[in-house]
Order: sequence, then structure tokens, then C-alpha cells
Amino acid sequence: MTELAAVKAALKTQAVETPSWAYGNSGTRFKVFAQAGVPRDPREKLDDAAKVHEFTGVAPTVALHIPWDKVDDYAALAKYAGERGVKLGAINSNTFQDDDYKLGSICHPDAAVRRKAVDHLLECVDIMDATGSADLKLWFADGTNYPGQDDVRERQDRLAEGLAEVYARLGEGQRMLLEYKFFEPAFYTTDVPDWGTAYAHCLKLGTKAQVVVDTGHHAPGTNIEFIVATLLREGKLGGFDFNSRFYADDDLMVGAADPFQLFRIMYEVVRGGGFGAESGVAFMLDQCHNIEAKIPAIIRSVMNVQEATAKALLVDRGALAAAQREGDVLGANAVLMDAYNTDVRPLLREVRGEMGLDPEPLAAYARSGWAEKIVAERVGGRQAGWGA
Amino acid sequence: MTELAAVKAALKTQAVETPSWAYGNSGTRFKVFAQAGVPRDPREKLDDAAKVHEFTGVAPTVALHIPWDKVDDYAALAKYAGERGVKLGAINSNTFQDDDYKLGSICHPDAAVRRKAVDHLLECVDIMDATGSADLKLWFADGTNYPGQDDVRERQDRLAEGLAEVYARLGEGQRMLLEYKFFEPAFYTTDVPDWGTAYAHCLKLGTKAQVVVDTGHHAPGTNIEFIVATLLREGKLGGFDFNSRFYADDDLMVGAADPFQLFRIMYEVVRGGGFGAESGVAFMLDQCHNIEAKIPAIIRSVMNVQEATAKALLVDRGALAAAQREGDVLGANAVLMDAYNTDVRPLLREVRGEMGLDPEPLAAYARSGWAEKIVAERVGGRQAGWGA
Amino acid sequence: MTELAAVKAALKTQAVETPSWAYGNSGTRFKVFAQAGVPRDPREKLDDAAKVHEFTGVAPTVALHIPWDKVDDYAALAKYAGERGVKLGAINSNTFQDDDYKLGSICHPDAAVRRKAVDHLLECVDIMDATGSADLKLWFADGTNYPGQDDVRERQDRLAEGLAEVYARLGEGQRMLLEYKFFEPAFYTTDVPDWGTAYAHCLKLGTKAQVVVDTGHHAPGTNIEFIVATLLREGKLGGFDFNSRFYADDDLMVGAADPFQLFRIMYEVVRGGGFGAESGVAFMLDQCHNIEAKIPAIIRSVMNVQEATAKALLVDRGALAAAQREGDVLGANAVLMDAYNTDVRPLLREVRGEMGLDPEPLAAYARSGWAEKIVAERVGGRQAGWGA
Amino acid sequence: MTELAAVKAALKTQAVETPSWAYGNSGTRFKVFAQAGVPRDPREKLDDAAKVHEFTGVAPTVALHIPWDKVDDYAALAKYAGERGVKLGAINSNTFQDDDYKLGSICHPDAAVRRKAVDHLLECVDIMDATGSADLKLWFADGTNYPGQDDVRERQDRLAEGLAEVYARLGEGQRMLLEYKFFEPAFYTTDVPDWGTAYAHCLKLGTKAQVVVDTGHHAPGTNIEFIVATLLREGKLGGFDFNSRFYADDDLMVGAADPFQLFRIMYEVVRGGGFGAESGVAFMLDQCHNIEAKIPAIIRSVMNVQEATAKALLVDRGALAAAQREGDVLGANAVLMDAYNTDVRPLLREVRGEMGLDPEPLAAYARSGWAEKIVAERVGGRQAGWGA
Repeated sequence: MTELAAVKAALKTQAVETPSWAYGNSGTRFKVFAQAGVPRDPREKLDDAAKVHEFTGVAPTVALHIPWDKVDDYAALAKYAGERGVKLGAINSNTFQDDDYKLGSICHPDAAVRRKAVDHLLECVDIMDATGSADLKLWFADGTNYPGQDDVRERQDRLAEGLAEVYARLGEGQRMLLEYKFFEPAFYTTDVPDWGTAYAHCLKLGTKAQVVVDTGHHAPGTNIEFIVATLLREGKLGGFDFNSRFYADDDLMVGAADPFQLFRIMYEVVRGGGFGAESGVAFMLDQCHNIEAKIPAIIRSVMNVQEATAKALLVDRGALAAAQREGDVLGANAVLMDAYNTDVRPLLREVRGEMGLDPEPLAAYARSGWAEKIVAERVGGRQAGWGA
Repeated sequence: MTELAAVKAALKTQAVETPSWAYGNSGTRFKVFAQAGVPRDPREKLDDAAKVHEFTGVAPTVALHIPWDKVDDYAALAKYAGERGVKLGAINSNTFQDDDYKLGSICHPDAAVRRKAVDHLLECVDIMDATGSADLKLWFADGTNYPGQDDVRERQDRLAEGLAEVYARLGEGQRMLLEYKFFEPAFYTTDVPDWGTAYAHCLKLGTKAQVVVDTGHHAPGTNIEFIVATLLREGKLGGFDFNSRFYADDDLMVGAADPFQLFRIMYEVVRGGGFGAESGVAFMLDQCHNIEAKIPAIIRSVMNVQEATAKALLVDRGALAAAQREGDVLGANAVLMDAYNTDVRPLLREVRGEMGLDPEPLAAYARSGWAEKIVAERVGGRQAGWGA
Repeated sequence: MTELAAVKAALKTQAVETPSWAYGNSGTRFKVFAQAGVPRDPREKLDDAAKVHEFTGVAPTVALHIPWDKVDDYAALAKYAGERGVKLGAINSNTFQDDDYKLGSICHPDAAVRRKAVDHLLECVDIMDATGSADLKLWFADGTNYPGQDDVRERQDRLAEGLAEVYARLGEGQRMLLEYKFFEPAFYTTDVPDWGTAYAHCLKLGTKAQVVVDTGHHAPGTNIEFIVATLLREGKLGGFDFNSRFYADDDLMVGAADPFQLFRIMYEVVRGGGFGAESGVAFMLDQCHNIEAKIPAIIRSVMNVQEATAKALLVDRGALAAAQREGDVLGANAVLMDAYNTDVRPLLREVRGEMGLDPEPLAAYARSGWAEKIVAERVGGRQAGWGA
Repeated sequence: MTELAAVKAALKTQAVETPSWAYGNSGTRFKVFAQAGVPRDPREKLDDAAKVHEFTGVAPTVALHIPWDKVDDYAALAKYAGERGVKLGAINSNTFQDDDYKLGSICHPDAAVRRKAVDHLLECVDIMDATGSADLKLWFADGTNYPGQDDVRERQDRLAEGLAEVYARLGEGQRMLLEYKFFEPAFYTTDVPDWGTAYAHCLKLGTKAQVVVDTGHHAPGTNIEFIVATLLREGKLGGFDFNSRFYADDDLMVGAADPFQLFRIMYEVVRGGGFGAESGVAFMLDQCHNIEAKIPAIIRSVMNVQEATAKALLVDRGALAAAQREGDVLGANAVLMDAYNTDVRPLLREVRGEMGLDPEPLAAYARSGWAEKIVAERVGGRQAGWGA
């Protein structure tokens, strides 16, 4: 197989998980703008996700958020997904939208609230059993807003205790993916604020616990690809929540704010053995399409990940290693930039053609009439949203 | 008058405006936690604001947000306030919570939306006429989320045009206070992102247009007291929206995150002639008490401003100037720090005693039974909140 | 002329000024690493700069830094440059490397130091008269390290006074370009910390005073292209000091850290009429090649500016305006991204061929033997560096 | 013992290590300003450090930097220190000021350079044996400036290998303290950029390896006290390099930029059992007094640490725990703020009096004539500085 053929083969195996909640309405604390045609229930979200996969070919799974996607019969939901060509992916817990969680969930000072939070997480594992999902993705909004508000260290003890109980419940082939976040919604301390904290907890929990990197959850200036390389080296990179940001956790389309950064991240993924199903690294989107059309935005995001991946795969690693060994700063940088500066869109059009897809997913989606159909049909009922 | 007497006299004249919306519920995009006893309408907000003034003695005015505080009869509302010992303060416009404003208000690409936004601002001036408010406070959520989304420069043209129309409508003794903000809710460009932009627009509009400094609206590391000193030097400091932050626009209680910064700001205010009614600088709170009790949080915030002001007034300016002239870096810094390190709480207790107030506003409020009363009485109806 | 022909014609007129000091050694506070073959005097710097122009065709001028590039006979230096195919460009003042400037220069508390600083600036204008340079570029290291160290506002008064004296000295066709910087070497206040401060001073000085945007001189997250658009709209953009950064004022090769940002900046330049000789906007490099080979790094930087410019010129502005008008967020963004994602290197190779240049400047330089020649010949003497 | 007596007793046991290099000249990349009277060799640095201890009573040890403080006979140097009332403290390695280290030291692509770096570290352990120092403090300037320049992950492998060799050489009672830094002098990647990386390496090395927190080495907005609490909980907090910053690694006097942050850090130290000799946590200064008088600046810094510690010790932990348990956000915050707002200077004057010291260290130092003496006597020779 030629090198280009290998790149194309790799691109055809790519899998980007889309999140059910990105199909619903979202917004900022100032306003959630409603969009016509937005799904009203988990099945409609799956319908939309299936469209993304239909046109991109590389979005085969859909993440659920519990309780946003709570249904009576998860097996039926999984079957519904399957009939549309997609599978259910990671189960995302939600311990931040109940009034009880005002001062935290798993780290709350009150044991009763912690119990409730842990029970919710255990329920999520039950759901995983039903859906066949392998990953429990944990993000905690826990933290404090004011110095002194709570005991920072005791909160770590509570966190460790709660995680351990959930970890013990994980079945064969199931993982716990722990996400960290710099800040928001807590504004003084966050209980899992950085990769170091997530890593330290995962290390103690065991091999089924791994870290999730949300690309919007870092301090300004943080070198995310360094974290990716380090977690891969430690065998602790569970996956990504992709999105992009100019300022804080802006949750814009991945690749929209700093495509070069996304390329560098994907390069470290490829270089560190994190690409490909056997790596166990999950590539998920976690975005808010506050003002743009949701399905096209998700298609675009998937394409942005593809383009960054293609460029990363095109890096001439032999030439790079040679320049690095020689201490040729400009030469080594030039090898990387050559790949980045390549226009990979023609290559991806070819790949799509070979996969039996329209080479232009966005145009094909626009022609499909789906957007008009959902606007016409999804009338009445309550639109899905972050809180729905 | 001794120096200490002068400081005490100055502290007695202090006036901190509290915002009607801080008495209602607020939150993050993840969750708004409801609190018992929260006001259900503008009059109940004024009732609460009157309590803050009753116990602190330095919170005599209340800012309104339109349309959150829309009433049929503003003169009656003003009278209602007056009967409770407070006055209506700045009118805050709101051009971000209508579905039309998804892509902006006064900077929107569509002239019809711009018209609607400007009409709202003109209506706010009408309300000022009715309430006797002197200040129109303008904060625009306008901006873009994605590069290319709109023409950055044309948006400035639209902004200038809209502001000019509103400026022309201002009556005698009325001002337009233009607020800037680094980001949020827009995540790529914000149309008034920094003091320079606000300043440039105000300069062209004329003397009735001034800049408002919201202490949470800056890039990380920004030296806010420098901006304060500069705007005072330029005669363009209209006032403050006080709050504090560790990360972004956290809207925590002012002085909670960096009390030394608040002191430095107040020092530049005092040094630059910005303290005192004649200065025209308005001191307003703009905060979100997401998880803490609202009235006590506002009382605490007012006290934090008082303490920072007291310390600023206590700076030995003669000694400071002498050390500065001599290039005595450590000596000059020590003069400033001496004032900052002083515990001014005894002094403020004295000041309150001399004003006929309880020296401990929070304890007095707690004893007053108001908290229990509103929890008991404000049942049913719809709690006020950012969107209420 | 077709559109592509117009783009190519525009690219052929591009002019990027290289700084004499970038050819010498530089470093961090921790270490300046010396490189073999580095120039030992201003003429050798011009020799190197001439090579950059020889191979790129778009680096026709060289900025000087006084006193680093002090010579007895500036006319002779200009003649020397001319004989090598380049011209002398902006004169950069240096008021930060004399022991007297420990507490500032033009803002120093001591009038004698201020006098010295202003005299240096006036001398720089004398040099401009001799070299025929049109631009005086002013960057001040002035500021304070500790709160209270000096009077923030008085320093502004001193700054205004000093600038006014120098402004008055400017001749016909001469400009003063005022640069701002967020921080470093001052760590508490900087006397010209942001574009607003520079703008306010330039506005008062008059039309010959304009603002310089150094792309590394902003707070984290600052939207630089917004500033560019705003300054162009105000007629106050004098030029750029190009470099790139991941953290602070890293002074890396322009385009190396965030090529998408550079493209967005160049798009606003083009869109705002800032491209082309008649615009008066100067495009200068200001970088430190601490660890990489200096001449190739500068060639690469010039090429990075070319590539960003080419992409900016390729934006389909008609399609962009149409999508913007319609509020088509994704469509408008896609138009911009189409240009960015284009590989413009083939186009630039064509442009160079048509200019009679080797299409690959770096390879041509490598083949030229210049690097080996200077290493062999520039032995002994004192290498030029920031302090040389 | 009453509570206040216990606080006073604790304060008397405090030990802050001062760094030999802070007595010498330092600066930024733009300029090192020389000061009269600065030491010319390690003994003169010890003389100055002894003065700081003489007047503060809590600065009993002095950190050395090798090779800056290289001498022929370390036992003699230790004896010299002892005769002046101080002891030699941590040995700091320096692998950044040799030309060989341009692309790194222990992480360099070339094995020969790595060998040299590791040999230097081993030599530092030899010196520890001679001086009786317990701590080897490691800070690496290693990193890269450009994407692609070197292999991020291989550099971690090299780092791990080098550290392991040095770790194996540590004797009984000796520790390795690994420092992390966000950026500078490397501007793209830093090989130990955050506490997580340092922690992961120390964990693998063993119990003698611990993490050092330099308070200036974090991304903007980082919650340092959270890191302190976490490292204490993990048993991996080796110590502090204290200084303060407004922007990057400004190296200002500790407590000068954000005294509230220093208090919060010291509170977590006290709360987490990190205060007191038995804790093993080392409190060291690492600062640059670029423009202020060096010895008074160090005295001031020691006093700032004392004041923050006193406030931390004064926190009413019973009341705090009670409020935290009840979820009383404002009440818990108020307990912390009460301690912070206390003016502890009278208490520290008492403590000093009881220790037989002048209650005002700075005034006493000023009266001592030492400053005048060193200016008069230390003439000729070469002033010590970062590179001396």
C-alpha cells in the first residue's frame, strides 16, 4: 500500500461521535435562541445524528446525556438508532441541573446529596448495560464560588470516595472517562480543574479510568497537545470532547478558532498511537451551536476533524525525525508546516467518493431536503435543549 | 477638620447604586438555582434594595433594567421607591433577550433589527424622563461567534449611527454610559470589546457620553486601575459596574476575588478626583449571587466597596508623592501598602454609629427578620430573574 | 485583469520591512545563545537584509535601531544599503538600555532623565533626516513594577509632554508611530499598555502620529484583527510589528504560532484598505530568532506574511458580503475558510517566477553559500546583539 | 497555651529560605540594571543573607545556585555561613546557561548534551553531600520554540531517564524537588509545564521526589492554592519558590501583587499540615529585585510571608468548618475574610520583640549602616548576577 493509500485507508476508519445535545437548543446565560426544526425527543436527535453520519460516513455513534435523553426502554432506543445506521455511544452523566446540586454533587458537603449524585452515576452504568455503551463520561460542575466556602481538600476526599464506588460498579469492557475543566460554572475552585487532578484520580481508580480532554477546558495559553502526548505516554488518554474557543469554554465548532492547534493535537494523537479503534481513544464532539444551523454545523465540525486528521497523517515522519535529531529547528518545523499547509480537501473528496459518499457533505445535506422537512414536521411539542 | 475626620466625612457621603436584577435569581448557562423569598416584581426588588440602604446607609439608589423592570407607571414606581428611602438610578437597556437579537442588536446586519434596538434605547430615555434618572447605561451583547460571520468594520459604522441617534435624544442633565466587555455572549468578536473602543465612540458623540468600567469585563491580567486613571485624565469615566472575578465575567461579589485590586482602583479614583458626587462618577454594583443569599451578599458587597474606599482615603499622599519623586520604589510601595494593610473595619463601625446605623450591617439585617418575612410572604407568582 | 492576475499583481507590490536587530543575537533573560556568522556592525546587518530581499523580492527596506545601529555617517550607510538593493526604513528609538532608564525614560519621575530621553528621540529625527526615513517608531519600556511606585497619571502627563515636543520636530512626510505593549519589562503598569492609550495620545498629537500594532503585545485572547479594523476605520493604523507568540511577547516567527490569526489580520488589512503603498500602513517584522538560524528564519517569516496575504486577497468578498447580509453564519464563515484552506504556495511560486526569482527562496538561499561565507568571514570582532 | 500564644509560637518557628542569587543583579531580556554594593562572590551573598536573618529572625537558610555559587571548598563555605548565623539550604542546578543547552539539557536530542546535564545534576548532589543540604531543586529551561522542533514525547522519555539516574544517586535524607513552569524561556512547549507533569514524574521516581510550586509559574487564572491542597493531600508537596506576578513569571516580591492569594495559599498549607519543620515543606523565595534595593526587598518579602502566615493561622477553623458543613456560603467566606482583614502587623511586632528582635526589621536594617557599608566596600571586582 502506498503512503497515500494508507492515509486514505486510515481516514476511512475514522469515527467521530456526535452528542445528542448538540442537536438541541443551547445558549449562554444571557439567552437561548430557539431554532426551527430542532428535535423534541431523543429519537429525533438520533434521526438528525443519523443524517450527519449518512453524509460524512465517519460519525457512526451518538453520545447520550442522562437525564436529558432518558427513555423508558434503552434497548428500544438502541434498536431505533441501529435502524438508522448509528449506534449509541458514551453515556454522559448530569449532576448539575437539579436544585440539590447548588453547592456541588459528588463533592457536596451534605452526604445525602452526594448519595443522590452517586446513585445517578450508578444509574448511568445501568443504562450503559442496556445500551451496550462502553464509556461513562463524567464531568462535574462541582466547585466553589468563594474562598472559604468549602474545604477544598475534603471535597477531593469526597470525590475519590464517590468515584471509587462507581468504578467498582463498572462491568467488563466498560470505562469511566473523567473530564476536567478549568472553570465554569464554579468561579473560585473547580473540583477537577486540570488534567493532573483527573490523572491522579484515574491512576488510583485503575485501568478502567481514563482522562477526557475537552479542548475548551484549559487556562489561556495551555499547550493542549502536550497534555495529549503526556496522557498517551501514560496510557491514560480516554478520549476527546472536541470544540473550539477563543476565550473560555466557548464551545464553538471544533477547528473554527484555531485550526492549527487542532492539527497539532491530531498530530500528537497519531504520533502517540492514539488514532484507530484499537487505541481506545474516543473522539467526541461537545459543542453548542447557539446561533448557527445545528446539523450543518455538526457536519462541518466532523469535516474539520477529518481535515486536521488528514494533515496529521500526511506529516513526513521520517523527515521530521531526521530534522529533529539534527537539531534543525527550522527544518523540523518546515516538515510539520508542509503537511499543515497542504489543502487536503481534494483528498477527502476522493476518500468520500471511494466510500460511496457525496464528496461534498454540506452540499449534499442541503440538497437532501432534511432541513426543510424537520422545520415543517417538528412543530409543537417542546424543543430539546440543554435543560430538556 | 483632622485628616481622619475628613476621611470619615467622605465615607458618609459615599453612594453605591445597587441593581434591581441582583435581587432576583441568576445563574450560569448550566443552571439558574432558585432561592426562596426572591422578589416577583420591580416593587419587591425596591423593597429589598431599601433594606440594603437601611442597613448600610450608602446605597441610596437602585438601577433598573428595561424590560425586566417594565411597569406601566414609572412615576409611581419612583414614588414607591422614595417612600422606602431610595431613588431610582440608572436605566439599563436590554437588547439581548429577544429572538430578533440572535445576530446582534444595534450592530445587526438587518436594518429592521437595528431599528428595533434603537427604538428600545429611545424608550429607555423616555423612561429616564419619567423616573428622573440621569444615566442611560448601555451594554451590548453584540458581536460574532465565527470569523467571517459579519463585517467587523461595518458593525462599527452601524454602532456609531445608532449611538448618535440615541445621543441626540438625551435631555439636559442626561448621560449615556457606554460599557465595554471583553467577550461573552459573543465568542469571536465583541462590538465594544475594550475601553479604547468605548472611548473612541464617546469622544465622537460628545460630552454627555462616557465610559463605564465593569470590573469583570477585561482580558486576563489587564490593569484596570490604569484604565480608571486614564479615563479620569481624559474626563471620560462615567462610572463603574462593580463585581469581581477569578476567570472571566464571573460576577462575584465585588472585592471577593481580589480585594487589593479593588483598593488600587479606588485609590486611582480618589487620586484622580473621581470620588464624590461632584465628580459625576457613578458607583454601581452589577453582580450575580448565584449560590449565596442575595440581600446579605449585596450588603457585603457595599461594605467591601466601603472598606476599599476607606483604605484608599487613608493613603498618606504626601509621603507617597515624596517617595515617588525620589524614585524610592520600596518606600512608595510601602506607603500604599500601609493603607491597604490597615484594618478599617473599626473605623467603618464608627462611621456607621455616627450615621445612626448599626455598626454591623449584616448582623443587623439578620436580626431584622426581613429574610424570614420574604420567604414566608413571597410565595406563588413568578420569581424575578434575569429573564423575568 | 482577471481576479487571479490582480491578486498576483498585488502580491508583487508587497513590502515587508526587516529589522536590523533580528540579524544579530538575541535571547531571553536566562541566556543569549550566540550564533556563528552573526553580523558585527550595521553594514553586515544590511548585507544580510539584502540577501533576504534578494531571495524574496518583497523585503526592500531595513529598520534601524538607535543606538544599536549608530554610525558616523548615515548618508553613507544609506548609500551602502542602496548599493545592495535595499533602503533604510523606520528609525527605532531605544530608551531602555541606559542605566538612567531604570525607572523609565520619557515618563521618568526625574525631569533630567526625561530630557535625556526626549533628546534621544529628537536625535532619531535628525537621523531620519539623514537617512531619508519616513517613520519614527517609538516603543517605551516605561512603567512600574510595584503598586504605588509612581503616579500613574502624572506619568501620562509626562508622556504627553515628551511626545508633543518630538511631534513638533517632525518634518514634512515624517511620521511618529507609537507602539503599545501589554507588559514587559515593566510588571505592574506599562505607560502605553494598549491600543486605546496609544490612540488617545496620537489623536491629540495630530495626523502625523499613528499607532503601531505589534502582534505579540496583547493580553491573552485579545482579538487583534478587531483592533486592526478599528484603527483603520479611525485612520490611525500606522503599521505592524509582526511576530508571533503562544504566551507573552515570545517574538517567534510571524505566522508560526497561529497562522489563522495572521490570515484574519491580513484580511482586515485588505478589507480596510490597509494594503498597498498608498495606504501608509507599514509592514515590519520585529522578532527574536533565539535558537534558529537567523536569515532563513527571516526569509521564512516574510514568506509566512506573503502566504497570509495571498489567502486574504483570495477571499471571495462578494460571496462573503452576500452571506453576511443574509445572516448566514456558516455560509459566511465557509467563504473565509475556503480562502484560508487554500494552499497558496503554488501561486506564490508562480509570482516569484514572474518576478525573476527562484520559486523557493529558502532552498535558493541555502544553495547560495551565503551562510557558509559569513560563518567563515565574520570571525573576531563583537557579534551584534540586542545590546551591541 | 491560648490560641494566640499558639499562633505566636508557630510564627517563631517559621523558616523562609532566601536565594543567593536574589542578592545579585538581575533584570529582563532588555536590561540588567546594576546596583551599587551588590555582592561579588558567594561569601558576600551569605553576608547579605545573614543580615536578612539577623533582622527578621525567620530566614535561617540560604539556597545556592550551581555554578553561580561554585567554590572550591563547600565545607568552608558552610562554615562561613554558620559563623554568620545562617546555614546553606537547597542546591539549585543550572542547566540553561551553557551554549550547549540551546535546545535543552536533560531533554536535549543529543545524548552527549543530556550526559553533560545529568553529570551537572550529579555534581550538585556531591555538593549537597559537602554542604549538608537536603534538597536538590531542579528547574529545567528545556522545551521547544516551534511546533515540530522536537518530539514532545521522546523528550519526556529522556527526562524520565535522566531524573531516574539522579534520583538513584540521592543519599539518605536527601530529596529531589522538581519544579514546573508554564513557559519561558521556551515558547512553544516546556518539558515540565505544570504540576501534573512534575507529579507524574515524581510518583514514578519514589518518595524522595517531590514537587516544588513556584507561585509565578502558572497559566493566567490558575488556582494555585488548589494545587497546594492537592499536592499536600498526595504527599507530594516538596516546597515553594515564592514570588509574585501580575502577568507572567514577573518574579516580583512575594505578596506584592496579590496578597490575598498568598494568604489563601498559606491557609491551604496550614490546613493541610504543610506548616512546621516536620511537614517537610520548604518555603523558599525566588525573586528578582530588578529595580528595588535588594536586601530591603528580601526583608520585605520575608515579612509578607510572615503576615500571610499569621493571617492563615488566625482563621477560626472551628467556625469555618461549621459554616462549610451548613452550606453557609457567605458565613464561611466571612470567617476566612475576617482573618484576612485583620491587621497582623502589631502581632508580628510582638512576636519579634519576644524573639529579641527589633519589631521593625526594615527600619532596623536601615539604621544598621549595612547598606552604606557594602556600597562603600564592594567596589571593584565583578558584581554577582544571574550569569555571574
